Amino acid sequence: MPEPPYYAIIFTSRRRVQPGDGYGETADRMEELAAQQPGFLGVESARGADGLGITVSYWATLADVRAWGRHAEHLLAQKFGREKWYQWFALRVSRVEHATEFTHSEDASAPHEA
Amino acid sequence: MPEPPYYAIIFTSRRRVQPGDGYGETADRMEELAAQQPGFLGVESARGADGLGITVSYWATLADVRAWGRHAEHLLAQKFGREKWYQWFALRVSRVEHATEFTHSEDASAPHEA
Repeated sequence: MPEPPYYAIIFTSRRRVQPGDGYGETADRMEELAAQQPGFLGVESARGADGLGITVSYWATLADVRAWGRHAEHLLAQKFGREKWYQWFALRVSRVEHATEFTHSEDASAPHEA
Repeated sequence: MPEPPYYAIIFTSRRRVQPGDGYGETADRMEELAAQQPGFLGVESARGADGLGITVSYWATLADVRAWGRHAEHLLAQKFGREKWYQWFALRVSRVEHATEFTHSEDASAPHEA
C-alpha cells in the first residue's frame, strides 16, 4: 500500500434492475481505463446480495482525481449512469490520512492482490 | 448526507472461510454499537461473490474515529478479527472533502435509506 496522504473516491450505489443494459461491460472498461490514468493507485469494488455496491479508487493527488472525473470516455459513462444504470448513488472524495494493512500469519505466503 | 468535511473509515477485507465462527453476529453487533457512538454519521457495507468486503463508516470528527477504534467491545472484536476472521484487511482513515448524491427521477419517490 502507498504511504498517505493520497486520495480515495468512495462511490456507493444502488443499481436499477435492467439486464442487458451494458452496465457490466462499461464497468469493466472504466476499471481498465482508470488504471491507465496518471496517479492511479488501485481500486477495490464489491456489490452485495442486497444490491448495494461500493467502489473505492485510490489516487495520488486531487488533480489526478479531477482529471479522471473529466476524462471524456468516463464522462460518457457517468451520463449513462445517471440516465439508466443507477437508482441512487453517492460520490465522496476523501483524503487518506492513515492506512494500515494486516495479513494473517497462516495466509502470509499468499499475499493479497490489490 | 452531511456536509463535508467529515471522516470516513474505509475497511476492506478478505474473510477466512470458517462457517459458524461467530463473525456474522459480531459484525451485526458492531454496526449496532457504532451507531450509538458520538459522531456516528452512517455506515455502508458490501461483500461481493469473490469474497472482497468493503465497509465504510462515516464520523463527524477524527476524535470520534479514534474513540470508536478504542471502544472496549470493538477492541475485542478487532482481536478476534486478526486471530480468526480475516485473511487480509486494509484500514484507511480519510477526510471527506467533497460529496454529491444522485437519485434517479423515476425513483425519487422512494428515497434511499442510509
